[in-house]
Amino acid sequence: MQYRRLGRSGLQVSELSLGSWVTYHNQVDTGAAVEMMAAARDAGINFFDNAEVYALGKSEEIMGQVFRQLGWARHTYIVSTKFYWGLAREGVTVNFQNTLNRKYLMQAIDGSLKRMQLDFIDLVYCHRPDPHTPIEETVRAMSDMITQGKALYWGTSEWSAADIRAAYEIAEHHHLHKPVMEQPQYHLFHRQRVEQEYARLYEDMGLGLTTWSPLASGLLTGKYRNGIPEGSRATLDNMSWMREQLQDKAKNEAVTKLEAIAKELGCSLAQLAIAWINRNPRVSTVILGASRLSQLQDNLGALAVTSKLTPEVLQRIDDITKPLAD
Amino acid sequence: MQYRRLGRSGLQVSELSLGSWVTYHNQVDTGAAVEMMAAARDAGINFFDNAEVYALGKSEEIMGQVFRQLGWARHTYIVSTKFYWGLAREGVTVNFQNTLNRKYLMQAIDGSLKRMQLDFIDLVYCHRPDPHTPIEETVRAMSDMITQGKALYWGTSEWSAADIRAAYEIAEHHHLHKPVMEQPQYHLFHRQRVEQEYARLYEDMGLGLTTWSPLASGLLTGKYRNGIPEGSRATLDNMSWMREQLQDKAKNEAVTKLEAIAKELGCSLAQLAIAWINRNPRVSTVILGASRLSQLQDNLGALAVTSKLTPEVLQRIDDITKPLAD
Amino acid sequence: MQYRRLGRSGLQVSELSLGSWVTYHNQVDTGAAVEMMAAARDAGINFFDNAEVYALGKSEEIMGQVFRQLGWARHTYIVSTKFYWGLAREGVTVNFQNTLNRKYLMQAIDGSLKRMQLDFIDLVYCHRPDPHTPIEETVRAMSDMITQGKALYWGTSEWSAADIRAAYEIAEHHHLHKPVMEQPQYHLFHRQRVEQEYARLYEDMGLGLTTWSPLASGLLTGKYRNGIPEGSRATLDNMSWMREQLQDKAKNEAVTKLEAIAKELGCSLAQLAIAWINRNPRVSTVILGASRLSQLQDNLGALAVTSKLTPEVLQRIDDITKPLAD
Amino acid sequence: MQYRRLGRSGLQVSELSLGSWVTYHNQVDTGAAVEMMAAARDAGINFFDNAEVYALGKSEEIMGQVFRQLGWARHTYIVSTKFYWGLAREGVTVNFQNTLNRKYLMQAIDGSLKRMQLDFIDLVYCHRPDPHTPIEETVRAMSDMITQGKALYWGTSEWSAADIRAAYEIAEHHHLHKPVMEQPQYHLFHRQRVEQEYARLYEDMGLGLTTWSPLASGLLTGKYRNGIPEGSRATLDNMSWMREQLQDKAKNEAVTKLEAIAKELGCSLAQLAIAWINRNPRVSTVILGASRLSQLQDNLGALAVTSKLTPEVLQRIDDITKPLAD
Repeated sequence: MQYRRLGRSGLQVSELSLGSWVTYHNQVDTGAAVEMMAAARDAGINFFDNAEVYALGKSEEIMGQVFRQLGWARHTYIVSTKFYWGLAREGVTVNFQNTLNRKYLMQAIDGSLKRMQLDFIDLVYCHRPDPHTPIEETVRAMSDMITQGKALYWGTSEWSAADIRAAYEIAEHHHLHKPVMEQPQYHLFHRQRVEQEYARLYEDMGLGLTTWSPLASGLLTGKYRNGIPEGSRATLDNMSWMREQLQDKAKNEAVTKLEAIAKELGCSLAQLAIAWINRNPRVSTVILGASRLSQLQDNLGALAVTSKLTPEVLQRIDDITKPLAD
Repeated sequence: MQYRRLGRSGLQVSELSLGSWVTYHNQVDTGAAVEMMAAARDAGINFFDNAEVYALGKSEEIMGQVFRQLGWARHTYIVSTKFYWGLAREGVTVNFQNTLNRKYLMQAIDGSLKRMQLDFIDLVYCHRPDPHTPIEETVRAMSDMITQGKALYWGTSEWSAADIRAAYEIAEHHHLHKPVMEQPQYHLFHRQRVEQEYARLYEDMGLGLTTWSPLASGLLTGKYRNGIPEGSRATLDNMSWMREQLQDKAKNEAVTKLEAIAKELGCSLAQLAIAWINRNPRVSTVILGASRLSQLQDNLGALAVTSKLTPEVLQRIDDITKPLAD
Repeated sequence: MQYRRLGRSGLQVSELSLGSWVTYHNQVDTGAAVEMMAAARDAGINFFDNAEVYALGKSEEIMGQVFRQLGWARHTYIVSTKFYWGLAREGVTVNFQNTLNRKYLMQAIDGSLKRMQLDFIDLVYCHRPDPHTPIEETVRAMSDMITQGKALYWGTSEWSAADIRAAYEIAEHHHLHKPVMEQPQYHLFHRQRVEQEYARLYEDMGLGLTTWSPLASGLLTGKYRNGIPEGSRATLDNMSWMREQLQDKAKNEAVTKLEAIAKELGCSLAQLAIAWINRNPRVSTVILGASRLSQLQDNLGALAVTSKLTPEVLQRIDDITKPLAD
Repeated sequence: MQYRRLGRSGLQVSELSLGSWVTYHNQVDTGAAVEMMAAARDAGINFFDNAEVYALGKSEEIMGQVFRQLGWARHTYIVSTKFYWGLAREGVTVNFQNTLNRKYLMQAIDGSLKRMQLDFIDLVYCHRPDPHTPIEETVRAMSDMITQGKALYWGTSEWSAADIRAAYEIAEHHHLHKPVMEQPQYHLFHRQRVEQEYARLYEDMGLGLTTWSPLASGLLTGKYRNGIPEGSRATLDNMSWMREQLQDKAKNEAVTKLEAIAKELGCSLAQLAIAWINRNPRVSTVILGASRLSQLQDNLGALAVTSKLTPEVLQRIDDITKPLAD
């Protein structure tokens, strides 16, 4: 495992990291989380990704319990959370859902710290942009979390380049803590934002990336080529929105072509897809999701594949996938 | 009930809200307050207005007890207080009355938090301008309350446009928290400040409005057309200053003319007056006062009236009231 | 008693105030202090001046006990302290004596709060200039005391106009809390600094003055015309430095001439001298010292004299004292 | 003992001071440390240097125990620590070793305060430059320690002039606490950095120096002229890197020539070497190391030597050592 600076910051994250999205509470209980996080750490992973909205707070609770059980020294791991969706799902939800206003953010960080049983969270993200809150209000609240010692670095997730730059410039102007990283979706079928839209931000503000969905929700493992298998995340009630995409015919055919390349390189489809992200030097870390230890262990095998991605291999991958990518 | 951003901030307030001025402690005890605040919330109201001076601190105490009794989650409601008049009414009162100096403000917020039994107050206002304190001193103290986590947003009440702009510019220059809202008197007979004086502030600094006295202290309900009725607020000792205005002959005749319009629209006079304020998109919320549940319920009926205020109806209302308005 | 703004700040101080210099611990014990401070407050005085060095901390302790005994609400009085001399008088004293460096100041405020048994002190002063500490270091430390809530306003004592202005400009540049007041010696025989040197500061930065030594250490009471009387402060060991000045022949003759004017106005010499300071609108408050209640009560009589100081009387006073004043 | 301002700051340090590097825990236990620190203080030393990495935290623990045992008032001594190397020596060490990132620094200061049993540390240093962390990230973290009251002044150790200046300018731009001092190696055989590289920083930013290794790890005592003696620090396992330099032939011959000058001046070689550093007015304090009380007492004798370093003597010293110095 190698470590990369989170953008221009001085924090070093492992090139692969482990997220809890979808899996924790739904597919992974505390026992399984202990097993997988211990294995991840043994493999050199030092960053564990989370969000308030994952399993509506349960994912934070489980990860907090794992930290307690494993007893890791606080300085040896990096943990994140993200704010935007809120936990409220019924009743009076205005100002506590889909917002980045000060009222929500200042209460949200306190809630996450409590659920995780931590004194501070390393990375805090604005989980989505909020067009109804001035960027300055959000920047001040995120910066205040850091000044108060409740967080160390802040960033965004799925923000436009223009909004990220605005946040950076507002923070610079008012001498506040500037955003350091962005968490975008990035995989073989979703490339435009990372490769084109953010292009100038890497140099101009030193933006780091912690990317999510390396396997396009499983599409890149090839398992959706014959429909939705039993027990896959696409069968979960709250994941119905992704079913159509997962059965896209052209993409599943492309996956079959990628399989041939994977075979040549002696790796699995998933390993090829993860290695392809990892080879992009703008990516600070590739967040893996896993519902079983075996899955995580297979994914970690991607580390050995990156060096095999020669310019010629990359060209062949581009020829297969780029026409289908957004 | 609809929700509107408080000016350009990310906080959303219900278009109608409930205040405690005059009523709490004088006409409304904790039991009645529980009943009315619960009804208000059931109707979608999320903002409850208060001030240190209302019933000299008793109004804050009652509202704090109501929050406790109703057990609402803290993120589901917005509460305000205001500072300027001070609580002292005898003895040494200099620096604790009619001031916005640092000494008073820093002690006042602590007093309000204690009386309300809260960790923070959402909105804090400078209740009046203080020409004897530099605006910078006041801006620093209000901003410090927010930095210390004791408040979330700050604003003014009954300040001139020039003073509001000065506060905004001083905060911007020194990188402090900027004022977000103003609480002006606004009703059919008092329009100049909101409609003319503040005109440029809405765009220039994103000023939000939380308006008070929608019914001109009852004048717009028509109940003062035959003198001061028993039990009305105009009979309260400390409200004697408004008696003359309430019996103004021309205004009470105008009210009779408005009653004809109300009848046409199938609503009460009060509902017409409230709907007229609510139809102004610069207004973030109309603060209602009520001494009885039935009164509040009648007022809430204004929501159905706003859409009936066609340009033609508005013109007729203007013809009746504008010549008499200040 | 009238109240004046402390310079351009929003804080209002009584035109006469009571200091503890020389007297507390030496001539005034807690019992006498209770008596005099109660009388002062009854007369309308709201500001009580102190310093760390007065009786090496004992003066702060006594005043703290008086506040406890009298049980005044914290918002009804203003209390000060001053830092520079330090408490150390033997042993390793470097960095704890005659300095305004950060190390000393940050520990000094904590010591004063403890001795006074207070949560915050209203006014904190740099008791003298320190040419060996950068003004920026001192400004940051004083401003930090305010940000931390340990003090409300800060100022200087016996600083040059150039240094005061430097402190103001540095604070403005770095967006820190700016100095608000200066405590200079000011009386009929010491006028240059207040009247000439500081002249531009009143308008440019709104400097307020809390003046000390109104009676020139007793010279202006006339009691030193026949040598040093028993029991006067000039007989105290640590006051020997002022004996020569107190017996200055020309000044004592001028005092005899002033006595004639006092007689005409129907007041005591001390009252005339205090009224003369009080008539200067640049002075926010005249700090009185008193070792006995009767002395304080006589001094308070000066309030009735100020209005008798017509231009013609002032001219006669100038003719007598100005040639002898520095 | 004389006291000098730490650069342009208002803090005064004794011209000689006592460090714990190499010695504490390895050669000096708590008992010996009590003895030497008491003797140092009796001689007028007020600054005691330390670092997190010295004996991996044990040096801080020992010094903390000495402060407790000796019971010195907190304002009478100055203590330092330094951050960079981290305490981790095995296992997951990324972000906790060889870094100046925010995550490390904010946890490191808390660890040092705990080991030293102190509420604040006077001087905190960045122990080395970290090219992998933006200087702004480090400046913000160091400045935040001061704002939080955990430290009083911050500086660097072994940073390039360019990096020191960058830190100063970034702090000035963002209105943060600026670096005050640098801790460079400085002795007769290592002069370039202090005398040439930093030349402009003394005036431009008021940089102070706390210099280390006055005796070039013992080379300048002459004891390595006949190889590595038993029990010297060069025999310690973790000091093997300095063995070659200590046996440099040309330098040891130069030492013999210096011995003649020392004899003329009636002092020891070590005293001559220390006095030579002390005579440089850019040096705020010369940090001495000592494993025995007798060694410390000999070193303190250097104070009497400084005045004997006439221009002619200095020229002779230069002729002997400058050609060999870096």
